[in-house]
Amino acid sequence: MTSSYIIGLDYGSESARGVLIDVVTSEPVASHTHNYRNGIMTRALPDGTPLARAWALQNAADYTEAAEDILATLGRGKTVLSIGVGFTASSPMPATQNGVALSQLHPGDPHAYVKLWKHGAAQPYADTINSRGGLFLDNFGGKLSGEWLLAKAAQIADEAPATWDKTDRFIEAGDWLVWQLTGNEARSLGFAAYKAQHSEVSGYPQGIVPGLSQKLSPPLRVGSAAGQLSNAWRERTGIEGDAIVAVAVIDSHVVLPAIDAVSSGCLVGALGTSAAYLFLNENFRPLPPGIEGVARDGSVRDLWCYEAGQASFGDTLAWFIKAFPRGDTPAESFRLYNNEAANIEPGANHLVAVDWWNGNRVPLADSGLSGLLLGLTMETTAVGIYRALVESLCYGAKTVVDLFEAGDFTIHRILMTSGLAQNNPLLVQIMADVMERTIEVPEIANPTAVGAAIHGAVAAGLVLSYPDGAARFGARTFKPYRPRMENAAVYRALYRTYRDLCASDAMRDAMHSLTEIATAPAVRAEPTAAEGRPVA
Amino acid sequence: MTSSYIIGLDYGSESARGVLIDVVTSEPVASHTHNYRNGIMTRALPDGTPLARAWALQNAADYTEAAEDILATLGRGKTVLSIGVGFTASSPMPATQNGVALSQLHPGDPHAYVKLWKHGAAQPYADTINSRGGLFLDNFGGKLSGEWLLAKAAQIADEAPATWDKTDRFIEAGDWLVWQLTGNEARSLGFAAYKAQHSEVSGYPQGIVPGLSQKLSPPLRVGSAAGQLSNAWRERTGIEGDAIVAVAVIDSHVVLPAIDAVSSGCLVGALGTSAAYLFLNENFRPLPPGIEGVARDGSVRDLWCYEAGQASFGDTLAWFIKAFPRGDTPAESFRLYNNEAANIEPGANHLVAVDWWNGNRVPLADSGLSGLLLGLTMETTAVGIYRALVESLCYGAKTVVDLFEAGDFTIHRILMTSGLAQNNPLLVQIMADVMERTIEVPEIANPTAVGAAIHGAVAAGLVLSYPDGAARFGARTFKPYRPRMENAAVYRALYRTYRDLCASDAMRDAMHSLTEIATAPAVRAEPTAAEGRPVA
Repeated sequence: MTSSYIIGLDYGSESARGVLIDVVTSEPVASHTHNYRNGIMTRALPDGTPLARAWALQNAADYTEAAEDILATLGRGKTVLSIGVGFTASSPMPATQNGVALSQLHPGDPHAYVKLWKHGAAQPYADTINSRGGLFLDNFGGKLSGEWLLAKAAQIADEAPATWDKTDRFIEAGDWLVWQLTGNEARSLGFAAYKAQHSEVSGYPQGIVPGLSQKLSPPLRVGSAAGQLSNAWRERTGIEGDAIVAVAVIDSHVVLPAIDAVSSGCLVGALGTSAAYLFLNENFRPLPPGIEGVARDGSVRDLWCYEAGQASFGDTLAWFIKAFPRGDTPAESFRLYNNEAANIEPGANHLVAVDWWNGNRVPLADSGLSGLLLGLTMETTAVGIYRALVESLCYGAKTVVDLFEAGDFTIHRILMTSGLAQNNPLLVQIMADVMERTIEVPEIANPTAVGAAIHGAVAAGLVLSYPDGAARFGARTFKPYRPRMENAAVYRALYRTYRDLCASDAMRDAMHSLTEIATAPAVRAEPTAAEGRPVA
Repeated sequence: MTSSYIIGLDYGSESARGVLIDVVTSEPVASHTHNYRNGIMTRALPDGTPLARAWALQNAADYTEAAEDILATLGRGKTVLSIGVGFTASSPMPATQNGVALSQLHPGDPHAYVKLWKHGAAQPYADTINSRGGLFLDNFGGKLSGEWLLAKAAQIADEAPATWDKTDRFIEAGDWLVWQLTGNEARSLGFAAYKAQHSEVSGYPQGIVPGLSQKLSPPLRVGSAAGQLSNAWRERTGIEGDAIVAVAVIDSHVVLPAIDAVSSGCLVGALGTSAAYLFLNENFRPLPPGIEGVARDGSVRDLWCYEAGQASFGDTLAWFIKAFPRGDTPAESFRLYNNEAANIEPGANHLVAVDWWNGNRVPLADSGLSGLLLGLTMETTAVGIYRALVESLCYGAKTVVDLFEAGDFTIHRILMTSGLAQNNPLLVQIMADVMERTIEVPEIANPTAVGAAIHGAVAAGLVLSYPDGAARFGARTFKPYRPRMENAAVYRALYRTYRDLCASDAMRDAMHSLTEIATAPAVRAEPTAAEGRPVA
């Protein structure tokens, strides 16, 4: 009897990765990573055409090259039952009627390429759209991001009308890849809802960008089959079997089934440079301030998935390590600071920090805010400050929990994933203490690619449901961080202090005035002469 | 014709220093320093008797030993017209009717020694006195310090009643030294007013410490002659001439005539580890909150001298250098930080700090407050923080200026002296920018001893007045730091932000709650087990 397999593909910003999972044993048996030939283009196109500031493009041809390498490496000669795809978003691109990337036809035109999620040059278009407002923003905190599809479409329509005219389809790169693999333009409800403000009731928002509606197509909910791997791709990769390809999923959402986050009441935090939180619930409620987006069937079937976040998370600690290094490398500094910080009892550092180094998302949604450190004395140490920063990140995380609970949701389970959840047990333990809840960190390799594979298995009917897929292919063990109740009273008092500060008008006014002062023309004007020397 | 001279003595905490000034040329011609044999005794008496925590004693015999060494070194065979004395205060001691130090008679009794100004063990007695209150505290912000004479008298009376009984005179060490030199118990109004709450109208406060009144004597205003150097001392030192000895002066006040701070409207800051401000005015007004003491004729004749301060000044910068060193030595770190901080334009660091590392004196008089740093972003640098701390010290200094101006005083001239005024031109320049006023730093060696010499000259009638003495013997040049008006608007806005923060209840509540949390029993209780490690 032949073994059969499923494949998950995880398309990130610099590279794509695939895992091959044995369907019978449920074990991953191989993985392969492919770096994009052109990476992220911020300075120039492949032909040398220069790019303006804040641009960030990718070349669609890199995605198919990666797919061919990964699928052939993992699947040649094997029976592959399904393929799932996670992809960065919003990374939209123009294509022809037949799915040919416009960049292939017009390689010297910057607007013909994929506008990567971090392409920042569309922000003014988002600002204009926001100033007009509209019901379609109700489920997105009233505000379109410059990273999203509508803003990027508006930029092309305005700056390159000829390119816009040639754009038959304006499509997320993840959807485009699925189209290439299957021959079917099968768009994902995940991209459409979170990145193009598509709603179940009224479809895509109308009248935002001229001609856009005709360049989009109705989306399918996640876990839908887009089609089988095409014959052309079977030839290129040597893959055998049904090879059902699922519609693509936003990369930050695709991980959910790999870590058993597939049921109502589950909160998942991805603790990276920033922190992104996804909360799953069977019910819809209008967005409280600070929640940034919500859609159903865009992440996991039949559940609403709410998005929130902290603008700076690992960034804040990395900033501290960079400003005040201890060891020869950042890793060494982190090790030293973490070791010493673990010996400080809660409250003994006599400090509270507010974690707004990149502004605040929850609960104020104000990017003009900044960080704060309060309680400094002659006894304050560098390690005490480091610990205060760690604690402030945990207070910010608890603010997200509070926000959902204030919205009358019940959180049954809290999972933390990504960099700091893996690498900084001190932080996760403090977070458990602050939240007075057990936090679980799933133990699984390549969770995003495994999550994509489970989406493929759902689409192919290999599993009955997401919970079934999670049970078969997802994480088997979770490292629990249990709250230490001896710390609860102190952290309750510190968290109250933190929240009182966050609510202080005086503090926020001061932050805003600093930004006004720093950006006022006078500050940036002529350099001052002989600073620090007396005028004798 | 023989030359004639005046001598100034500056008795500090670790050593005494003298200067010899030629009366004809007005030039200092010699100086000599003598370290006390027993220094500051915090652990044990000379005979080994151990001392309790927070005690800080000195041996009166060290003062006369120092006087003999300095006066003989500087004055042997010379015509000395006058001697002035500056002395640390409040440093009171018990003596007999004849001026014999009790420590000479009872060398094994800790309470028989000088209680140095920094002796902290009398604070509980100050607290008790404060809890009862009294009109005598009106000119001292309503609060007696544990460093002052009344608290130290109360400690002896309570803890060593037999010693208290043997104490005929309870006297400041500076007054005791003058008594030794002249044979006359001539007390200084400076000590009596600022350190024993003596008032022109009602004398010493009554009923505070049993028997105290009989151990004190009425004070003379500064610039009064206590008498001539006694014959015994002429023999011991070889000094010739009139040698009129002036009543002693508090060391922090004695400097005033040496830096031409002898007229109404003059504000003098001593920028050391903390900052002490003296403001001279011909008028009396009841103390606004934050002013800590006021008396007339206690510092300079015919002027009221108001005291205020910042609890942490150089301390705050030293803390930063210690927590985040740059070079191999503190001096090297300061040099590097100062050089780089000078290149930051006002407002460009996007930070405001509040300088309360040791609590706040002006305007809140609250030692439970602490420092704050606001406006942190991913772009914040260590140097940017250093500059924010320097700026916060200047905002705190401007708060003192504002306080006097709000009390309807006019400040005609601002002088800054001591460590940071000499060593940190960047700080003084920023202070001038923040205050929008010229700040002058007097250029003079041994200013405190020179100031003492001028007091002696006044007492001996060698000069007509303090202004005359200042003109003849004081600083001849002043380094002016002129405000750079291109920075004024930015610093005005930043200072407004600082003041708004200082006035914020939310901020102060947070500081107080941190102290409550840090001192709550729970925090200090059992060490936590396995911090930073998950409970698996």
